Amino acid sequence: MIYNMTDKIRTEISTLGEFGLIDHLTEGIELRAPSTKRGVGDDAAVLEYPAGRQVLVTTDLLMEGIHFDLTYTPLKHLGYKAAVVNFSDIYAMNGTPRQITVSIALSKRFSVEDMDELYGGIRLACRTYGVDIVGGDTTPSLTGLAISITCVGEAEKDDIVYRDGAKENDLVCVSGDLGAAYMGLQLLEREKVVLKGEKDVQPDFAGKEYLLERQLRPEARRDIIEKLATAGIRPTAMMDISDGLSSELMHICKQSRAGCRVYEKEIPIDYQTAVMAEEFNMNLTTCALNGGEDYELLFTVPIADHETIAEMEGIRVIGYITKPELGLALITRDGQEFELKAQGWNPLSE
Amino acid sequence: MIYNMTDKIRTEISTLGEFGLIDHLTEGIELRAPSTKRGVGDDAAVLEYPAGRQVLVTTDLLMEGIHFDLTYTPLKHLGYKAAVVNFSDIYAMNGTPRQITVSIALSKRFSVEDMDELYGGIRLACRTYGVDIVGGDTTPSLTGLAISITCVGEAEKDDIVYRDGAKENDLVCVSGDLGAAYMGLQLLEREKVVLKGEKDVQPDFAGKEYLLERQLRPEARRDIIEKLATAGIRPTAMMDISDGLSSELMHICKQSRAGCRVYEKEIPIDYQTAVMAEEFNMNLTTCALNGGEDYELLFTVPIADHETIAEMEGIRVIGYITKPELGLALITRDGQEFELKAQGWNPLSE
Repeated sequence: MIYNMTDKIRTEISTLGEFGLIDHLTEGIELRAPSTKRGVGDDAAVLEYPAGRQVLVTTDLLMEGIHFDLTYTPLKHLGYKAAVVNFSDIYAMNGTPRQITVSIALSKRFSVEDMDELYGGIRLACRTYGVDIVGGDTTPSLTGLAISITCVGEAEKDDIVYRDGAKENDLVCVSGDLGAAYMGLQLLEREKVVLKGEKDVQPDFAGKEYLLERQLRPEARRDIIEKLATAGIRPTAMMDISDGLSSELMHICKQSRAGCRVYEKEIPIDYQTAVMAEEFNMNLTTCALNGGEDYELLFTVPIADHETIAEMEGIRVIGYITKPELGLALITRDGQEFELKAQGWNPLSE
Repeated sequence: MIYNMTDKIRTEISTLGEFGLIDHLTEGIELRAPSTKRGVGDDAAVLEYPAGRQVLVTTDLLMEGIHFDLTYTPLKHLGYKAAVVNFSDIYAMNGTPRQITVSIALSKRFSVEDMDELYGGIRLACRTYGVDIVGGDTTPSLTGLAISITCVGEAEKDDIVYRDGAKENDLVCVSGDLGAAYMGLQLLEREKVVLKGEKDVQPDFAGKEYLLERQLRPEARRDIIEKLATAGIRPTAMMDISDGLSSELMHICKQSRAGCRVYEKEIPIDYQTAVMAEEFNMNLTTCALNGGEDYELLFTVPIADHETIAEMEGIRVIGYITKPELGLALITRDGQEFELKAQGWNPLSE
């Protein structure tokens, strides 16, 4: 689990230079999407989408020490996650990711083998989701590692789902379960302290594999998008849950000029998440509402779809959309009503 | 010229938070390109290009201390340049830039006012070139500033010019003049030493404004692309000169499986560049060949276009394309022949 650089052969990046490194990393890359006309190797990649298809563009910048900690994040998993979180944004528009560009800034402590690991994870994610790497940039950094990925996707114009389409009485749904990635992070942070010898506790991941997987190697919910399409359900609003359920509900309600009522007892939480929250003496609902990095889908559907959606595995109806003046309400297990506040991961505030 | 943070009002970014900062920076952004359907504010931007148009994608990651030095780079100029270098890549494909995404990682030493400067430069570049800001990411950094910009552009399929189309006997052309941005950098680096009090020399930029402008606030050669189109000339190969003429000639010759002969006396150099090289006791041709950051266009045209191209202002024929086995040759003023080697800016080699 813990990434140990010292066991490995180390080739300095300076032996390849920038162009050599790019050639090395992109060697044997296949272009699979019919929309990819030219990939790496010119001033720009060239894409061509069929008439009537709209093009989706999303981007993420991940900084070492802010978004990831290499003391417990294997570089291959980091690469995989960096790609997948971008795919997730395209699925959240009800689209299909097709191409990415990958820019990496790295300090001298990284070797060619490290870059192979990182890029290997990105390439694995691309193979898994059918996405082409079509360009990027590789540059030195004075300090840590920075990864910037831009993803291009496509969708039929009428299929695209925005955040602003939720209507009164629509059902609020989430896929999968929430809070596990956050508990995985807590677990890894505890482990880090253990490794530093600052506490006399043995590392113990047994029975907690799911939490680690959710934190270190999340997947994008392509399957949910496909299921909804097959069932003939088109969400009225949708986004992916990266900052936490509360924060994302606020985005959808604000942009849709609506309110919502969600029920604590309906929020899907995995057993391991619950056990871990108890072990850490944390409020489970707070973790599920504000934990972030779940990369599940939050979406609303017309109430007419209730029967169909209620029967779909992996989707939970957690509440409904109201008039805006009713605000965002959480109904607790004992029937009390609280106003939802976003306490999501917002590192630019204090 | 020198950017002084201490004279300014300082608002901490933490007072706004991530979403507040994004709202603040993107406030009042207008979407001008007909191909932009939705900009900032959802999981992804939505674009739609007319049938038959191909989509160009290019990206750049700029790191503080590697690509820019804030002791002499005004943030507004940095923003302008960060955007323009991406536009330059799209023009180098014979396309038109239409949208960008802007990701910024910033440490606590930056204020809201600093971000206004940086973003102001990006927005000015976008207005000047008719490009929309459609998305991005804003995140903290433990150390310096990182800027990642991805640019999307468009072109008719048959208009796109790649690096691999140069043919034997084609003329090798460059726009503008070379080496000035590099001399501007030398000048600023000297000024930095002066400011540190390490040398007893007075800062002196008089008569050197052009060099500073070329380094700090380059433009992309949209005008050259338009001129060529008006004259009915379609280059056979093209790229922009960012790493230096030698390095770019090698890319074109390698990808086109060709060689070239270029003439030292034909390489366009500005008077100020020449004066400065003498002052610094540097070889002028070496500066022009390997300086980099010129953002001029290097392209090849069929020899049949010779008469037309020779008359076009701002374009110089510097040589011609040969069989690959003849290699890349520089013919000096005194008629000697040297093999061209790329010594361009390659910070990942030692």
